[in-house]
Amino acid sequence: MPRVDLTPMVKPRSVAIIGASRNPNKVGSVIMQNYISAGYEGKLYPVNPNAEEVLNRKAYSTVLEIKDAVDLAVIAVPAHIVPLVLEQCGKARVKSAVVVSGGFAETGEVKLQEKITEIAKRYHIAMMGPNCLGVMDTRSKVDTLFLPMNKISRPKVGFVSFVSQSGAVGSTVLDVIASEGFGLSKFFSYGNAAYIDEVDILEYLMHDEETKVVVLYLEGIKRGKEFVEIARKLTKIKPVVVLKAGRTSAGTTAVHSHTASLAGNYAVHEAVFRQFGFTVANDLSELMYFAKIFASEVRPKGNRVAVITNGGGAGVVATDEIASSRYLRMAEFSEETKRTLKKTMPALVNIANPLDIAGDASGDRYRQALDAVGNDKNTDMLLVIVLYQTPGADPSVTNEVIQKKRALSKPLIVISIGADYTLRQAKLLEENGVPVYSSPIAAIDSLEALFEYAEFKKRAERR
Amino acid sequence: MPRVDLTPMVKPRSVAIIGASRNPNKVGSVIMQNYISAGYEGKLYPVNPNAEEVLNRKAYSTVLEIKDAVDLAVIAVPAHIVPLVLEQCGKARVKSAVVVSGGFAETGEVKLQEKITEIAKRYHIAMMGPNCLGVMDTRSKVDTLFLPMNKISRPKVGFVSFVSQSGAVGSTVLDVIASEGFGLSKFFSYGNAAYIDEVDILEYLMHDEETKVVVLYLEGIKRGKEFVEIARKLTKIKPVVVLKAGRTSAGTTAVHSHTASLAGNYAVHEAVFRQFGFTVANDLSELMYFAKIFASEVRPKGNRVAVITNGGGAGVVATDEIASSRYLRMAEFSEETKRTLKKTMPALVNIANPLDIAGDASGDRYRQALDAVGNDKNTDMLLVIVLYQTPGADPSVTNEVIQKKRALSKPLIVISIGADYTLRQAKLLEENGVPVYSSPIAAIDSLEALFEYAEFKKRAERR
Repeated sequence: MPRVDLTPMVKPRSVAIIGASRNPNKVGSVIMQNYISAGYEGKLYPVNPNAEEVLNRKAYSTVLEIKDAVDLAVIAVPAHIVPLVLEQCGKARVKSAVVVSGGFAETGEVKLQEKITEIAKRYHIAMMGPNCLGVMDTRSKVDTLFLPMNKISRPKVGFVSFVSQSGAVGSTVLDVIASEGFGLSKFFSYGNAAYIDEVDILEYLMHDEETKVVVLYLEGIKRGKEFVEIARKLTKIKPVVVLKAGRTSAGTTAVHSHTASLAGNYAVHEAVFRQFGFTVANDLSELMYFAKIFASEVRPKGNRVAVITNGGGAGVVATDEIASSRYLRMAEFSEETKRTLKKTMPALVNIANPLDIAGDASGDRYRQALDAVGNDKNTDMLLVIVLYQTPGADPSVTNEVIQKKRALSKPLIVISIGADYTLRQAKLLEENGVPVYSSPIAAIDSLEALFEYAEFKKRAERR
Repeated sequence: MPRVDLTPMVKPRSVAIIGASRNPNKVGSVIMQNYISAGYEGKLYPVNPNAEEVLNRKAYSTVLEIKDAVDLAVIAVPAHIVPLVLEQCGKARVKSAVVVSGGFAETGEVKLQEKITEIAKRYHIAMMGPNCLGVMDTRSKVDTLFLPMNKISRPKVGFVSFVSQSGAVGSTVLDVIASEGFGLSKFFSYGNAAYIDEVDILEYLMHDEETKVVVLYLEGIKRGKEFVEIARKLTKIKPVVVLKAGRTSAGTTAVHSHTASLAGNYAVHEAVFRQFGFTVANDLSELMYFAKIFASEVRPKGNRVAVITNGGGAGVVATDEIASSRYLRMAEFSEETKRTLKKTMPALVNIANPLDIAGDASGDRYRQALDAVGNDKNTDMLLVIVLYQTPGADPSVTNEVIQKKRALSKPLIVISIGADYTLRQAKLLEENGVPVYSSPIAAIDSLEALFEYAEFKKRAERR
């Protein structure tokens, strides 16, 4: 039984925006406008004692005036008014609240933060914040982020949920996710974590069928014992990618002055993360790479990778990475595969892994190679390199890769490096569920993360 | 005294294209068309015994018919005709030749390759290839690449020269360079290296004032002793970034079946590379990251990095990377800097490195921070993080960073992560000489490479 229920916050039937005003630059108004633009279909109530109307909707002077039941109150008023507003929410039986206002513990106002936390608990309001961006759900179209649409794109609907204590890291990653093909399920940026913290959110996401991958940016962990408990359960159900800031003592000091979190000893954290089957990222880019592969890939049955390439050099670079990785191995093609390839490939193609199908390979040759290698019982994962700069590579290759991806029950990812023409083809691939990497290291690290998690689950299921 | 002179190939006053035909899909015609589109200003002579005219120019039946002196012959005819054509070039005293035709040692035709090499040497023709993309020079507008313009962008004029035995890796990197801000000086893809090899090219680039950075993709090294000699001299003059394929035994096998090169023992190669001050990349992405920083950065005086950020979390991630790097250290601000910052920054900004100037920082606050930290005598390099998703960051920040970069004699690089809005600002920064990285790891690895090379040069100069 979770100590708070996040459902009214994530799937509200009605939202009150406290602090919405006629000034379009005010935080409350930006949030209100974002709800309208996003097409939120529940009821929307602006609350402002000094306005009759906000954005063509009747404004209420307090939340108590709203006759309807309010599932979520978004609070964007000066810090010293928050206690009053929250009391009113309590009396109006509002189920959840996102306090976006800053000016609490992060600026030394610890007492004020304790006060609002006490109110929230007394009235059983699931309170997120204060000093946070709040919640986004691409399905219910809840969006409490006070970020203008022109600076940060909103992601499409997907199955990756992203949790970040830091607002800036959160919005940056959100922006990147918007440009990726895999989409987003939910986003949480929980700020000072006066009440709702990472444990509550992870507990919610564990049971959320719209979340298949959890991505986590952590600075500190507040409730260690509970975190360990939920982590142990969560990773048995879905992959969790984590970036923990404060690996070094300099980083730890920086964490403390950022969110007053205690970063703790990183080595201990990392050991614990790995034991529980977390996928540990060292960098925001890795966080994205790993999210991408988990979002679209099936679990590999083993560690043997086949490489198909239309550029010999790129095949060599990938082979080096695979052969020097901790867990992956280059596949050894079966005799049957070799026979098939000998029949279908031009005489000059050397039948080996990496399979260099040469610079004049177009869709037909890729299909023949993908068919033979995809069916090979000694191959667990396919790494397909497409250098679109070569004379043969054109949209027919993109099409064949997409077809094969749909038919295949093994992981298949693409490495493609280049500018305009290449980026257009890469986008097509990603929109059709094929993860594309522009760096061989990133691609192979991601395959390795996928394999490691598959092994972890195998072990967990055997127990 | 170099054994071959590449000047007639790189800066030809006249080019004969042997194999140019009226069929626009033929290799010779693509090359001819590329010369015309690129605006090559020297004389251009199509050679084709079966045509009167090619692309509105009088065609010659053989190179012997051309009355003018020919500096460069681009040869794109079937392999078995190359000996005849090359003999004619010799008799016509053609100074250099790029043999793009394939069908020599790489397909087992070793004898045919020996034959054309013998002819080239006998007539003192500086011959590149066969089986190569050849040469590009953004200033003389020489461009022997038979790659259609729509699939691969051509880079702008710059000071980075790129040498790649592999044609596919070469054209891929070329395409990426075209989308980067730093531009290209020269590109060489030398194929089978029957005569001209990497040593000849490096020797040319060492003396080339239009080349300030050399980027090298190597599979094997043919003339080890000469390579060591030129490497020893070259790195004392300009930075050399190298990616050597065949780090592992699987990679080595793959190299052999690609260009029949002997990859050799990678550990030995790497040790030698590092001893000679090469910057060693492990991946095509690293090759680009390193090229970017060397292309635009001054040499740092020390290893102390200051971080300015508008996102606390991103500052922590960067701090972790710096603190855990082999050579870099977080700078300790001087008392004077601290006093200045205390005066200019808002009260809530914690005066420390990383300097988190908060999510509402716009151009003004960045300028004040850049001024104070830029002048700090305890700071050798500036790492500026701009998260454009925050409310304060807008084009005024871009502008201030560009201004500071122009005035500062220390390295200054930017980390910026995001989609559309961010990418537009990043492009502006790069066009104005500020290297931008979308990954903290890439940024800090690049700063480290810059520092390592500066230290190498210091040691070399002391000797």
